[in-house]
Amino acid sequence: MKKVIKVICHHEYGVPEEVARVESRELPAIAADQVLVEMKASPINPADINRLEGKYPIRSPLPAIAGNEGAGIIAQTGGAVSNLRVGQPVFSLDWVGNWCEAYVADANSLIPLPDDMPLEQAAMLSVNPPTAWRMLETFVDLHPGDWVIQNAANSGVGRAVIQIARLRGLKTVNIVRRKDLIPELEAEGADVVITDEIPLSKQIRDLTGNGTAPLGLNAVGGESAREIAKSLSDHGTLVTYGAMGLQPLQMSNSLLIFKDLCFRGFWINAWYKRAEVSEIREMFDHLIPLLTSGTLKVPIEKTYPLTNVKDALIHACQSSRTGKILFVMN
Amino acid sequence: MKKVIKVICHHEYGVPEEVARVESRELPAIAADQVLVEMKASPINPADINRLEGKYPIRSPLPAIAGNEGAGIIAQTGGAVSNLRVGQPVFSLDWVGNWCEAYVADANSLIPLPDDMPLEQAAMLSVNPPTAWRMLETFVDLHPGDWVIQNAANSGVGRAVIQIARLRGLKTVNIVRRKDLIPELEAEGADVVITDEIPLSKQIRDLTGNGTAPLGLNAVGGESAREIAKSLSDHGTLVTYGAMGLQPLQMSNSLLIFKDLCFRGFWINAWYKRAEVSEIREMFDHLIPLLTSGTLKVPIEKTYPLTNVKDALIHACQSSRTGKILFVMN
Repeated sequence: MKKVIKVICHHEYGVPEEVARVESRELPAIAADQVLVEMKASPINPADINRLEGKYPIRSPLPAIAGNEGAGIIAQTGGAVSNLRVGQPVFSLDWVGNWCEAYVADANSLIPLPDDMPLEQAAMLSVNPPTAWRMLETFVDLHPGDWVIQNAANSGVGRAVIQIARLRGLKTVNIVRRKDLIPELEAEGADVVITDEIPLSKQIRDLTGNGTAPLGLNAVGGESAREIAKSLSDHGTLVTYGAMGLQPLQMSNSLLIFKDLCFRGFWINAWYKRAEVSEIREMFDHLIPLLTSGTLKVPIEKTYPLTNVKDALIHACQSSRTGKILFVMN
Repeated sequence: MKKVIKVICHHEYGVPEEVARVESRELPAIAADQVLVEMKASPINPADINRLEGKYPIRSPLPAIAGNEGAGIIAQTGGAVSNLRVGQPVFSLDWVGNWCEAYVADANSLIPLPDDMPLEQAAMLSVNPPTAWRMLETFVDLHPGDWVIQNAANSGVGRAVIQIARLRGLKTVNIVRRKDLIPELEAEGADVVITDEIPLSKQIRDLTGNGTAPLGLNAVGGESAREIAKSLSDHGTLVTYGAMGLQPLQMSNSLLIFKDLCFRGFWINAWYKRAEVSEIREMFDHLIPLLTSGTLKVPIEKTYPLTNVKDALIHACQSSRTGKILFVMN
């Protein structure tokens, strides 16, 4: 393994493709309880874009190496490391520094993966599938046959929701912006896919047996969130985990008072922070087999080398994408 | 007791003082398990105004006798009634028909009151103090010293919140529209009273030890609700129980996602509907002594006879009131 590696770094906040640049770093020697991870793949997530813009609620000290998730393989182990071996696929739950060719980590901070894990998919394992998993676990006691309504259904989280819901016997109404996504999501297991022409709520209420859905998932905000809220059952819960539309939630008082809806938020970073290690491992015990079996699969639109960071970021910001943009290393 | 009585009735929805009118009704004979209640006092609540306007989520079949709460005394008992006696003060948990001189009720449907109960205060016992009581009980596990933030603090519910919070050792930040209300609410036990100049949230965060308040209560909506939400602690809950400002709640996505706030609604009618009889009686076992002792007291601005319904309704709709408008009968 070479000792000088490439990373994507930013020294200021601003337009992502203008502030992110490729730099060289020297790798430190590993200590006895550390390992060297050779990165293989890392996606460009909305949170990465927000971090580069300075719009994320956590700001790393600058300069910072970007990239909030990714997967690699162990290239070297310290003398005291017994839980990981050279060649083993891993990912970390650190939320920065994944856009690099390699990094040094404490052996205990990594989550090991099976050898047959597809690494481009594994690179997208720590944020979106857990967000989907936790949102279907945490807020409402769901039973097979229950409806879940979501917007941004073609996002990484949205697709994971479709696939996990299907496994659990839940039914999904999926709202997308473009008609051409409908057959694709149906093929992945979506029960109903509709486009976001407002008003949606009457249509959704009809589709779900006159408003029986106890859970809505919102990553858009504004009118889209309001329509989902109106289509939920009495005492239903709307969980907001993203704000792609950049519009605040507008909630009529009567939805709160007379329909007794509950509005919550979800942020996977905060969940990781408060979760027990055993809870995290238990969740991945469920999720990892779904990836290795191909059940949980995120379409990839294009991969880029780290050196093409500008093109990759411009591509990732296009709204007409149908899959993820990933960096692929080495 | 006379057999023909006056009631306030409406045959259509519209401007309250135009659609509400005084009519005569013949009283039916009472059955063995019924009683005749001679009404003594009944307030004009915001819900009454909304019902007359047709803006309430429940619409009674028209024509309807208005008035959602009130208190009276037993004027006559049926032969099989043993739990109530002539002369006993009572109130009912029916939500219509209180603006009348008398009504016939099933003996089991009434809540008995002590003889020394001030009846004008008792007339305001079934909606506002229970709303305040339940909101402080239901949503957050509050401990002495915890802050509660509310707008519309001079409303019937608002004053009950101040008084019940004080009894429980909770501290309140109270938002009002007019400066002249400050000394009055302070005298009733409010810890802090401020006027609603936006932005409020920084001021409230400073007053509560940099945002430690776990509970906010909102009866206004719009900017006022948003400022309370911003001033709450992480993981705090904002409960909406009214919409005086007629503006929807605007919740920034980051308050939901990153601050993990929870937005709920509360409607006392729905609570009564799902509560056990024992829960309701237990609540009044707490509340009734607070009224007879004068601890829980709603200021009354003016009383009107039923025959002055137009003046009473116009007065009740004035925003400059400092106390309730009541009908007083007989």
